[in-house]
Amino acid sequence: MSNIKNIRHSLAHIMAHAVKNLYPKVKFGMGPAIENGFYYDFDLGTLKVDLSEIEMEMEKIIKENIPFKKEVISKQKANDLFKGQKYKLEIINDIKGKNVSIFTVGKFTDLCEGPHIKNTKEINIESFKISRIAGAYFKGNEKNKMLTRIYGLAFETKEELENHIKMQEEAEKRNHRKLGKELDLFCFSDIVGPGLPLFTPKGTIVKEELQKEVEKICKNYGFQKVITPHLAKIDLYEISGHKQKFKDELFHVSSEKGHKFVMKPVQCPHQTQIYASRIRSYRDLPIRYMESEKQYRAEKTGEVAGLNRVYAITVEDGHSFCMVEQVKEEIKIMVNIIKDFYSSLGLWGNHSVYLALRDYKHPEKYIGEEKDWKKCEKILGEVCKEMNLKAEKQEGEAALYGPKIDFMFKDALGKEIQIPTVQIDFATPKRFNLSYISEKGKEIPPVMVHRAILGSYERFIALIIEHFGGAFPLWLSPVQVKILTINDSCMDYAKKVKDALSSKDIRVEIDIENNTISKKIREAEMNKIPYILVIGEKEKKENSISVRKRTEGNKGEMSLNSFVEKIEEEIKSKK
Amino acid sequence: MSNIKNIRHSLAHIMAHAVKNLYPKVKFGMGPAIENGFYYDFDLGTLKVDLSEIEMEMEKIIKENIPFKKEVISKQKANDLFKGQKYKLEIINDIKGKNVSIFTVGKFTDLCEGPHIKNTKEINIESFKISRIAGAYFKGNEKNKMLTRIYGLAFETKEELENHIKMQEEAEKRNHRKLGKELDLFCFSDIVGPGLPLFTPKGTIVKEELQKEVEKICKNYGFQKVITPHLAKIDLYEISGHKQKFKDELFHVSSEKGHKFVMKPVQCPHQTQIYASRIRSYRDLPIRYMESEKQYRAEKTGEVAGLNRVYAITVEDGHSFCMVEQVKEEIKIMVNIIKDFYSSLGLWGNHSVYLALRDYKHPEKYIGEEKDWKKCEKILGEVCKEMNLKAEKQEGEAALYGPKIDFMFKDALGKEIQIPTVQIDFATPKRFNLSYISEKGKEIPPVMVHRAILGSYERFIALIIEHFGGAFPLWLSPVQVKILTINDSCMDYAKKVKDALSSKDIRVEIDIENNTISKKIREAEMNKIPYILVIGEKEKKENSISVRKRTEGNKGEMSLNSFVEKIEEEIKSKK
Repeated sequence: MSNIKNIRHSLAHIMAHAVKNLYPKVKFGMGPAIENGFYYDFDLGTLKVDLSEIEMEMEKIIKENIPFKKEVISKQKANDLFKGQKYKLEIINDIKGKNVSIFTVGKFTDLCEGPHIKNTKEINIESFKISRIAGAYFKGNEKNKMLTRIYGLAFETKEELENHIKMQEEAEKRNHRKLGKELDLFCFSDIVGPGLPLFTPKGTIVKEELQKEVEKICKNYGFQKVITPHLAKIDLYEISGHKQKFKDELFHVSSEKGHKFVMKPVQCPHQTQIYASRIRSYRDLPIRYMESEKQYRAEKTGEVAGLNRVYAITVEDGHSFCMVEQVKEEIKIMVNIIKDFYSSLGLWGNHSVYLALRDYKHPEKYIGEEKDWKKCEKILGEVCKEMNLKAEKQEGEAALYGPKIDFMFKDALGKEIQIPTVQIDFATPKRFNLSYISEKGKEIPPVMVHRAILGSYERFIALIIEHFGGAFPLWLSPVQVKILTINDSCMDYAKKVKDALSSKDIRVEIDIENNTISKKIREAEMNKIPYILVIGEKEKKENSISVRKRTEGNKGEMSLNSFVEKIEEEIKSKK
Repeated sequence: MSNIKNIRHSLAHIMAHAVKNLYPKVKFGMGPAIENGFYYDFDLGTLKVDLSEIEMEMEKIIKENIPFKKEVISKQKANDLFKGQKYKLEIINDIKGKNVSIFTVGKFTDLCEGPHIKNTKEINIESFKISRIAGAYFKGNEKNKMLTRIYGLAFETKEELENHIKMQEEAEKRNHRKLGKELDLFCFSDIVGPGLPLFTPKGTIVKEELQKEVEKICKNYGFQKVITPHLAKIDLYEISGHKQKFKDELFHVSSEKGHKFVMKPVQCPHQTQIYASRIRSYRDLPIRYMESEKQYRAEKTGEVAGLNRVYAITVEDGHSFCMVEQVKEEIKIMVNIIKDFYSSLGLWGNHSVYLALRDYKHPEKYIGEEKDWKKCEKILGEVCKEMNLKAEKQEGEAALYGPKIDFMFKDALGKEIQIPTVQIDFATPKRFNLSYISEKGKEIPPVMVHRAILGSYERFIALIIEHFGGAFPLWLSPVQVKILTINDSCMDYAKKVKDALSSKDIRVEIDIENNTISKKIREAEMNKIPYILVIGEKEKKENSISVRKRTEGNKGEMSLNSFVEKIEEEIKSKK
């Protein structure tokens, strides 16, 4: 097993040792190992610390090749040992039993359970780094004093450390909140409120293009769009079971006139009511509904952030109501939709599939009948096999009402994203008394197949902003072409070019700022525009354009007509 | 002046006389003239009445050519006169003063202020009719007893009466609630709640087609779509002034975690916040935003009905932020958008225009500066003239913040519909501290131009369902083509025809029911399908179809290709 956790933990002690050497008056909090590194909390009083000085001091200590020594002492002795260190004394008091364990490295002794490395020589001084400073309440309790937390990164090799730092920088550059502002995709307003994003024209284009794409694909597979209200009586969720599930996350709606509603936390129950509005025959099935309406969750005020956590998410949701004997074909349709959609973003192929089954040791955790579960698991297993999905079985990961297939993708930075899912549900139709008339004239409850393709637009947009670093595929780019003029006398020709592109529904802008051509190019590139057209006297005379393609640079001169044809084809084929 | 009001009032007395003749034990409530006729409220006890018998008895009384005679008597005398008539006694008690007035016709005397006709011979017995029976609380108070209200229609001529009855029948046939159900456009669910319509797949198509059309037109005129949340802090509406305006109509949102929001009653304030999210230069203006999000009003529970009055309306709303010198051009753009949109529905031409100005006698009723008002009124006047709008001036009809142009259309039944409007607003940008940097580097507030094109989708759909009687224009029809097979052996060819149409985005269905061809045709016609394609062995062999067009009937045989071309052209041109 890797020693890295012990190294990280030991580095926390060594950092405290270094701080003690440099700033003897400091009071010490706690210092554990964490993912990618370590931290230590200090009460610095009015002191200002120099992180690079601390790092150098740490290196000095490490190079001494000194051991970590453990001792178990009585609490009484510990209280003497840590006299004056009020945080340590409080921690000693919190510990149960008569004794405590301490670790000593060099001249620094800390209250600690361990384990640690044996000797500082186990540490590669090139594979750790002090990274940042932040505030943190002692013991995480906001009633306690705010201490200074110093973070460090630590890996087994220098290469790993450098990679991590590079990835962090890249992630920071791609942060959707930062790019969302830079590329003018969405904004927030203090007087509207946090957690309530407003989509600007450019962000709206991204949302609508995604929506058009997913709806076009679903329509091809027989989905019909519906629209359901954002409010409902609580009764709806009493029947569906969501009232219990989302208890504290429900938004309640009231008026002076005595109205009482909740804002919908999920879409499924509403869709059952459209199914229920008519008598359905076996001939009508499957009935496939999709919608892109908002659902609401009362997230904790402190937790709303960017587009990832907001009060209202616009969910692309869909359900198939079908007969048991149609379920298999429905599942296949859903998998094909997921495949088509993620292919259009270049994400298909870079994915894993999970077949989420019951926890067979605890059948009491699920609803529904044993025979239905068996049937579902068999169907899903067959689909995975027939479609060659290479699904990994995960026992205990099924939904409350049935087994499911989950898809996991990796974004450009290797972060795992689990969004698409296909789930079989025998329970909901029964709860809502849904039925269809069978060929023999009997009333039979349909099966519901739930599917998520992109989940919520808000989260999905956050994710693809970061995945593409703002450089969206051509079909998804808010501005597909930017026209730059070398001088004002070409403006009339620029407008002609713009009209030619606009008339083909290509999203095009002319840079009207009074800048040099090189500055205009720089700006268009910073805005990640897929195609930049440069227009001067020569192009005007020849009815041509000079084309620069994002990531590929100058592509030379081209006739306007051939460019229009080329870009139309590229948008259509979603290259 | 017309005598019709007196005739209607007198018919109420004559009806009471007839009821007294036929059912002597009846107790009498009140009986006034109303629009299109009259009514009288009776306490019938356990009696069942025969409306045609009452009508015949009324005719008999009228033919006697008897006079209406007025008398003023003391309350004391009136109490004796109406002894046993408890409702009359209560009314006498309600009347202020010592005396009351009574009218007598034939053997029936009623407590009444008049006026009445002089003699029953003034009534044309062919121009009135007893129409219906309903329940009504005495004096409109639900704490009182429920009486039986008998309604009658009355006009000056037989022709007017017949026309009215015909129009009523037509309106009833076109009622959007009835047609919405028959054509499966929308539904309601008791467990979701009243006032919260759910759009089925077919209704969703109508909504989305309207939206595509209005957005396409607006985009042509430089509008950019945005998306704003449905919630906001109350602060937003404190600044905009809507908090006061919509006081009792606001929905308040709260959670267990202490959140406090309101559901947006209007879109404008949200759109100002997108404008405010960046520094704007005079070069950026005009900035035109549009959106189709929901806004919410806490309507009285008893008043929600169909799609006309619901808790959430999806409003197609848009604003232009511009410089004062751009306002005129912006107004013209808005008028052109209204013209384009209503032309696509065949409603342009059948309209009136109003120029809504201040009430000059009460300038204190408005906000904003005198010079701005003058400027706006001048601009609007010029637009009306230059665009030949033939606008009628309406003093006192301006909005709080500025003058406006309103458009009024007439639907198929002659009912007036006022939806589109263009309004100039100097006040809102100032309230939200909006600005742009002028050419000289100064911060200047922009002007907002508000416009409504179709208003809310819910109300607009109700309206066009009734206007078209469910027979939507081809481009708007949820199902554009229905394919009917003469026998099952043509089903494969029917599917081929369906695919050929679907691939061109034509909305097509095959009738899969096991019915005769004439029954299938009848059903498709009842569902107001624009094109019906009949397919038998002959058509299959010849790769053709037999076409029936709504309202035009059988159009004969046609090759599949020419039909596809023809219908594509018809959809595109919105004929």
